[in-house]
Amino acid sequence: MSYQSIEHKFEKIRSNKIFETFVVAIIIFSALVVGVKTYDIPPRLEQLVLVLDWLITAIFLLEICIRFLAEQNKRDFFKNGWNVFDTVIVLVSIVPVDNSDLAVIGRLVRIFRVLRMVSIIPELRVLLNSLLKALPQLGYVMLLLFIIFYIYAAIGSTFFSSINEELWGDIALSMLTLFRVMTFEDWTDVMYETMRVYGLSWIYYLSFIFFTAFAFLNMVIGIVVSALEKEQGMLASAEVIDEQDAQHRELLRELREVKAALARLSENNR
Amino acid sequence: MSYQSIEHKFEKIRSNKIFETFVVAIIIFSALVVGVKTYDIPPRLEQLVLVLDWLITAIFLLEICIRFLAEQNKRDFFKNGWNVFDTVIVLVSIVPVDNSDLAVIGRLVRIFRVLRMVSIIPELRVLLNSLLKALPQLGYVMLLLFIIFYIYAAIGSTFFSSINEELWGDIALSMLTLFRVMTFEDWTDVMYETMRVYGLSWIYYLSFIFFTAFAFLNMVIGIVVSALEKEQGMLASAEVIDEQDAQHRELLRELREVKAALARLSENNR
Amino acid sequence: MSYQSIEHKFEKIRSNKIFETFVVAIIIFSALVVGVKTYDIPPRLEQLVLVLDWLITAIFLLEICIRFLAEQNKRDFFKNGWNVFDTVIVLVSIVPVDNSDLAVIGRLVRIFRVLRMVSIIPELRVLLNSLLKALPQLGYVMLLLFIIFYIYAAIGSTFFSSINEELWGDIALSMLTLFRVMTFEDWTDVMYETMRVYGLSWIYYLSFIFFTAFAFLNMVIGIVVSALEKEQGMLASAEVIDEQDAQHRELLRELREVKAALARLSENNR
Amino acid sequence: MSYQSIEHKFEKIRSNKIFETFVVAIIIFSALVVGVKTYDIPPRLEQLVLVLDWLITAIFLLEICIRFLAEQNKRDFFKNGWNVFDTVIVLVSIVPVDNSDLAVIGRLVRIFRVLRMVSIIPELRVLLNSLLKALPQLGYVMLLLFIIFYIYAAIGSTFFSSINEELWGDIALSMLTLFRVMTFEDWTDVMYETMRVYGLSWIYYLSFIFFTAFAFLNMVIGIVVSALEKEQGMLASAEVIDEQDAQHRELLRELREVKAALARLSENNR
Repeated sequence: MSYQSIEHKFEKIRSNKIFETFVVAIIIFSALVVGVKTYDIPPRLEQLVLVLDWLITAIFLLEICIRFLAEQNKRDFFKNGWNVFDTVIVLVSIVPVDNSDLAVIGRLVRIFRVLRMVSIIPELRVLLNSLLKALPQLGYVMLLLFIIFYIYAAIGSTFFSSINEELWGDIALSMLTLFRVMTFEDWTDVMYETMRVYGLSWIYYLSFIFFTAFAFLNMVIGIVVSALEKEQGMLASAEVIDEQDAQHRELLRELREVKAALARLSENNR
Repeated sequence: MSYQSIEHKFEKIRSNKIFETFVVAIIIFSALVVGVKTYDIPPRLEQLVLVLDWLITAIFLLEICIRFLAEQNKRDFFKNGWNVFDTVIVLVSIVPVDNSDLAVIGRLVRIFRVLRMVSIIPELRVLLNSLLKALPQLGYVMLLLFIIFYIYAAIGSTFFSSINEELWGDIALSMLTLFRVMTFEDWTDVMYETMRVYGLSWIYYLSFIFFTAFAFLNMVIGIVVSALEKEQGMLASAEVIDEQDAQHRELLRELREVKAALARLSENNR
Repeated sequence: MSYQSIEHKFEKIRSNKIFETFVVAIIIFSALVVGVKTYDIPPRLEQLVLVLDWLITAIFLLEICIRFLAEQNKRDFFKNGWNVFDTVIVLVSIVPVDNSDLAVIGRLVRIFRVLRMVSIIPELRVLLNSLLKALPQLGYVMLLLFIIFYIYAAIGSTFFSSINEELWGDIALSMLTLFRVMTFEDWTDVMYETMRVYGLSWIYYLSFIFFTAFAFLNMVIGIVVSALEKEQGMLASAEVIDEQDAQHRELLRELREVKAALARLSENNR
Repeated sequence: MSYQSIEHKFEKIRSNKIFETFVVAIIIFSALVVGVKTYDIPPRLEQLVLVLDWLITAIFLLEICIRFLAEQNKRDFFKNGWNVFDTVIVLVSIVPVDNSDLAVIGRLVRIFRVLRMVSIIPELRVLLNSLLKALPQLGYVMLLLFIIFYIYAAIGSTFFSSINEELWGDIALSMLTLFRVMTFEDWTDVMYETMRVYGLSWIYYLSFIFFTAFAFLNMVIGIVVSALEKEQGMLASAEVIDEQDAQHRELLRELREVKAALARLSENNR
């Protein structure tokens, strides 16, 4: 009973508006600290930043403890991906690091704290979830695009590797070069170089641009169509159906009255 | 009574077609004067331009006075954002400036006079309003994009600042560099530079391009879907519902006739 | 009577499938001749090309005469824009030119003959007409875009003309530079140059990119929405209404039978 | 009878899940081998790759034989384009090549084996088919774009070939240069070069960009609209019609009961 009352207290703190605003403020502040660290700052300020860093970590730790203790079913807490993300970020921040390799991870984790903004603002969480949900439907188009890339990269590194080792040295480099061509980034420089040896290699580039642009275009159209299908189709027809239902019920009521009148009439006639 | 008749006179002037056309002509003329001033012009022409400048300011001042006096409720005049904009632009044009810092503002204000075209042509005002109305719905996607930019910029300036101080020196410069990468503007030059030190940094660039392109794509689709939802859904179903209503009323009329016939029949049978 | 029979004969020629195919073949051939002339060709071939050129002109002249004589109402012939275009192209081709300035026009006209492909293939004519029809609806967005360009160009040439005369020298050059920025073509080179003098000029570029991209995006969405509205909305609801009408008539028939039965019943009861 | 039982056995193998997975695994493995060959590999590994290559060819040959023997109607096997593609790829792989020209074809065929991924995964086959089906509807827009390109290229090589032989030498080079301009790839460099001679040539570039962008935009919108028309319109109204049918049947049932009651009543009254 005493434990449950504590749990209840924590829950009250968690759903407190001031507590939420405070956490958001701390996250924004931690983002600013991350930003400040990228500037050349005097040593004294650097020490202040270090202190602030630990303070932020402490507050985050406290906040997660409150959120954990407020959860009625402790197991559910880790079923939520965002809670796991928050816990990992905070725990890794605590680990003291001297080794330079680990220090890099420590710095990265402090940067990723900014992502907590997404976990704390529900609208952003919804947005990100809907983005992630849209991804798998792209699966097969992505695979097709990858196959196109792979085949062109294989051809590219077979024929052009002797022309420019840096761009076409192996299949991985060739794929990077092809991605560059797809973004139209100085792609003519790449083309003119190979055209000096293979005069017809413009066919290679133009067909590649055509295929990828066409596949990409169809992917975009696919997403638009499915997005419209889901949201609009339902809405429009739902409205129509509602209106129709009301009219249908009105007619039915009238008909039943006619039937009742007939039944009464038929009874009288007997 | 005499005051009201003056007000009425001004209102008549304001809604006069010739007056409107004259004002539009003056705005176009002021835009041309702004354009002419950017060319190297002989001193004599420069003096003419100065005189024209003051003439335009005078006409604009007169026009605003007419519009203000024509307004029945003087307070409503400044509730309209465009009126405030017009007044500020004209008032700042009048202030004589000698100081070079203020002279810059004076020149800017004269340029912004061209924007009066938007305030005077209703179609443009509607267009701009609808553009501005579409902005807030982008709010959260913008915030998400900003978070992605911020995190990548923090990572970028942490790792790459020693490679190229000018591109990755601090978080602000890194965000500018990342915007450049997003527009595909010589982004491979930026990438190849960092790949010489960090061989795997292509992951950084490709993931960034993927995330921003994907978020951007979803933003565009969101706008398209909501634009379609609003305009089309209603139209299509409204037509259907109208047709349906007519048919429904026809059936109802018939049914009521049947009921009346039954009632008469039942009365007769008693 | 004799004249009408000639007219009829020409009309028969004009609608002859073989004649049409022959004209298309000649247009394609004239396009090839235009292409061949851009290569370095031996003098003998050049003479052949000249002869072919005159032959093509002669055939085109003959074709237009046939089409003109086949037209029943001679005035209607020149009401069709494409007929006027064809006639002008052919007439200008005939004029002998020695003067080098006019020679350029002669060469241009021979190139524009390729456009006759559009005038002869109905599907292309329909396509082009629908493209041209879509243009005016862009009118106000174009005007808004032009105002944005003009204001930014005026600001640009006011502040940056001393930095790079070639890019920002006057308002026309500035607009060209801004168009280049809008296409993301080496826009960072332009920006970095001005940022050396005005550290905050990135605001100028980013806001410009944002405004134009946003206005452009809205233009595209506007076209998509209006295109969909026209074609789809009607189709979908037409189908629904047809189905509904059939069902409505069925119910009405049944009801009328009920009414008739009641009327008979009521007659019997009297 | 014995032959049919063999055919049946092969069909069983073909539709076996393990067999399918094995074939996909082999295709992925052959893709990896293609990738590995683009790296500088020690001679010993190279020999292994050669052996693997022949092994893959052997397995593919076996697989096609099984698929062929499993087919009941042998003629139908070659009516399927993918089967023909698979057979050609495998057969060409078998042909031993020493000549360097043919060796190139041998290597290309081994790369194209990766495309077998599309022929074996049904979802990819469907996707590619729907992509190919969308192509012809682009036919006339493509032709229009080609005509625009051709005319501009003819003008370009007529006027600019003396300025830069490499970019505007003949009509083919000019079309390549124009494609580069369309992708905004260093297009200002091309423009500035010609503007030094022809000051107004910016009109040429801007009008070209405008026409192609506009034609392209309309092509995209056309595809979106037709894609939406097909998929959505049907769905939305189908749902409405289903709901309507159910309500219509309910009303009809009620009405028929009323009619029956009236008929009984009318019988009683006689």
